[in-house]
Amino acid sequence: MSSSEQPQVDHRRFQEALEASSKVAAEVLGDVHAADAATWLQDVTDEQAWEVFALLSTEDQADLLEHAEDGLARELVTRMSSKGLREVVEELPSDKAVDVLAEAGERVTADILGSVSRETAEDLRALISHNPESAGGVMTTEFVLARDDDRIGDVVKEIKKEGEDSEENLGVFVVDKAGTPVGYLSDRDLLTHSIHDSVSDLMAEPFVIAADEDQEAAATMIAKYALSALAVVDEAGVLVGVISLDDAQVILEEEATEDVHRLVGTSPTQQTRLPILVRASQRLPLMGITVAGGLASAQILSAFLGPGTQSPINEAILRYLPLIVGLAGNVGVQTSTILVRGFATGEVERNREREVFVSEVAVGALIGLLCGVVTFLFAAWMEGSLEEGVAIGLSVGTAVVAAVTWAGALGGAVPMLCRRMDIDPAVVAGAFLISLSDISGVAIYMVVADQLLSTLGQG
Amino acid sequence: MSSSEQPQVDHRRFQEALEASSKVAAEVLGDVHAADAATWLQDVTDEQAWEVFALLSTEDQADLLEHAEDGLARELVTRMSSKGLREVVEELPSDKAVDVLAEAGERVTADILGSVSRETAEDLRALISHNPESAGGVMTTEFVLARDDDRIGDVVKEIKKEGEDSEENLGVFVVDKAGTPVGYLSDRDLLTHSIHDSVSDLMAEPFVIAADEDQEAAATMIAKYALSALAVVDEAGVLVGVISLDDAQVILEEEATEDVHRLVGTSPTQQTRLPILVRASQRLPLMGITVAGGLASAQILSAFLGPGTQSPINEAILRYLPLIVGLAGNVGVQTSTILVRGFATGEVERNREREVFVSEVAVGALIGLLCGVVTFLFAAWMEGSLEEGVAIGLSVGTAVVAAVTWAGALGGAVPMLCRRMDIDPAVVAGAFLISLSDISGVAIYMVVADQLLSTLGQG
Repeated sequence: MSSSEQPQVDHRRFQEALEASSKVAAEVLGDVHAADAATWLQDVTDEQAWEVFALLSTEDQADLLEHAEDGLARELVTRMSSKGLREVVEELPSDKAVDVLAEAGERVTADILGSVSRETAEDLRALISHNPESAGGVMTTEFVLARDDDRIGDVVKEIKKEGEDSEENLGVFVVDKAGTPVGYLSDRDLLTHSIHDSVSDLMAEPFVIAADEDQEAAATMIAKYALSALAVVDEAGVLVGVISLDDAQVILEEEATEDVHRLVGTSPTQQTRLPILVRASQRLPLMGITVAGGLASAQILSAFLGPGTQSPINEAILRYLPLIVGLAGNVGVQTSTILVRGFATGEVERNREREVFVSEVAVGALIGLLCGVVTFLFAAWMEGSLEEGVAIGLSVGTAVVAAVTWAGALGGAVPMLCRRMDIDPAVVAGAFLISLSDISGVAIYMVVADQLLSTLGQG
Repeated sequence: MSSSEQPQVDHRRFQEALEASSKVAAEVLGDVHAADAATWLQDVTDEQAWEVFALLSTEDQADLLEHAEDGLARELVTRMSSKGLREVVEELPSDKAVDVLAEAGERVTADILGSVSRETAEDLRALISHNPESAGGVMTTEFVLARDDDRIGDVVKEIKKEGEDSEENLGVFVVDKAGTPVGYLSDRDLLTHSIHDSVSDLMAEPFVIAADEDQEAAATMIAKYALSALAVVDEAGVLVGVISLDDAQVILEEEATEDVHRLVGTSPTQQTRLPILVRASQRLPLMGITVAGGLASAQILSAFLGPGTQSPINEAILRYLPLIVGLAGNVGVQTSTILVRGFATGEVERNREREVFVSEVAVGALIGLLCGVVTFLFAAWMEGSLEEGVAIGLSVGTAVVAAVTWAGALGGAVPMLCRRMDIDPAVVAGAFLISLSDISGVAIYMVVADQLLSTLGQG
């Protein structure tokens, strides 16, 4: 029996097995659900993942690739032999096979398509021709069709014939002579009615989408109407594929994570599993805009403040306040948002917390360092004499590094503490964190500026 | 045939019908999918919605309530007669019936439970006893069971007997003599195998969750393992209900919206459909924290700036900068986030853009006004002489109102413009908007402060 505790026990078994030998680890993976196996392989080195993966049966390899994130799938697929890859592609449902081929690259794909069975190759070519983000790109071509003049018994016979090749829970679309979908029957409909009943008497209206429409439009339609399956048609209105509720769920979850991550200016993938440099670089564009905005604010302030009314150094320090507050706030919110979403999708499990925290602080420090250098150069160049400019630039730049690193740590620690204390991290990560990082940003800035300026004899 | 254009045509038909008479409008609703009908009723007045709803058949009323948001469902349910409500409850699957009763209140629920059939009442009582946010609270009790010593033919017979009472796409859980789930068969398994085959030879391992576990844990498990159905068990391990992939999808989508909205400090419902006062009040807690943070920052700054180095008025104005920037940024991001999520879930359709924009600006202005008054009072009280304090307070307070209202307008306009220009609103709403509202917040503040102070003779 599968329960929510079992996978954690199995995960420990896998980790222990991995230390003993790849062979034992592969045996553990063979026994568990491919969704778990794929997650665990993401947390070991690429080399280890490949060694274990290579020892799995073709069927288990196919299952695992079906559940693996793009990064891991690419890593494994590029190491596979042509023969191994061909076998896996034959094993997979067509929509997943296309995803795997997408990771293998064009040259390998051409090879594979030349060596698989003609039927498989035709299916795959048809799917590859669609935009991967369109309804046609996510549909499956393994489904059972009924004709509007069939009886229920004919449809059941057809299902028995197709047997294991057809995907589950798709039900059966009914088409007319031209191949246009005109009806839909669920498997339950087939079970509850007599084999002598006429299909056209029992079928419901089918839901249909054009192959070139966006995959999100398809997923939204499936979710809105709680469909088991959505018919995909070509320009002539002929049924060419089917999208399942299962597919829709995956698309909508990716979409939600994408939206959340984009809102805080980072990329829509499993952030916490990427290398630190990649994560920092993906978050830099927002930081660039924030730095530019902060520097623009400094110019606006200097226009209004005018000369002479204040000590020039103190005034300069004040002008960079919006920059510090903006940067610290954005880094903190990025980190906390990535964690909140990571908790929700299961990406950041408890046993990864320490690793994720350390890496998020490192990402924050890296971003802080870069923004600090840019700010130093700008301030040193813009502000008064060389000596004064360097003093101000050093103060502001150092404060940026300190405040941003601190904001990253805060953005990592607050959601984790919340989860441990059973408080919804999303509530606190938003409201509290922004203000906390604002106040501490101001405080850090003033302490650093004060200390540095008095050390440099400019205070 | 249903396509993605058809609902828009029907929506116009419904709107035209509504102007003619409720009766014609009810006829249109009777012809369309309940998911569409529920959305359209949300956009008319409560009075109109009720007039049309009252004219629907019991079956259509039940369908519509199954798809309606909590707010609309409550409005309709509280106006229904006991008799009407009882008929609807008998019509609905148990899990949805419980949701409807939750809107009706305890007294009405007790009445209804006393008057429905004994079987229905028992099912409903069992469900009501669970926490609505738990696995037990979202499970359905309409499902077909198989025994491990059954043959496939026995199960098919059982399904034919239960007929339309059982929900679709749940498949069949297999239990042992004690009622513990020991296996699972999909409807497709039943169709593809001989009626003489033994259930225990064909069944897969069941996925199981305890009734008191969180609904999110159940939904995450369903999504992770791509399950059609998850078995819910009581403390003794006995099967008491089933959760479908469909239910999981709804839970996960709500969860995603909830996370996003909470991250920006507002409540997890269809924000753009709530009254302006409610929306403003839900967003005030974050604003309160932001104001408190900004005022704390002002105090930190004054501690470091010390007396005498600057013109006291200019210095005071500078100290409130973090407050302005923080408030404007938060309001802008709240508004844009609500819109980005509203686009994704289909809550904010094109024809609602103008209405949503106007109401979001109003919400922003209301929040700005309140924060402005608080800031004015604080600054007037804290800063120097009465005259000076009032001058500074007026400047800062007025600037808060202007900057926050502007940020709300920006947060509304930018995502809408992006959508029209086919740019992903999430990318721009995050990065650009924060900096845009920071810079414009600073500029607005300085212009307002400069003008007001020179008018008041303090500049």
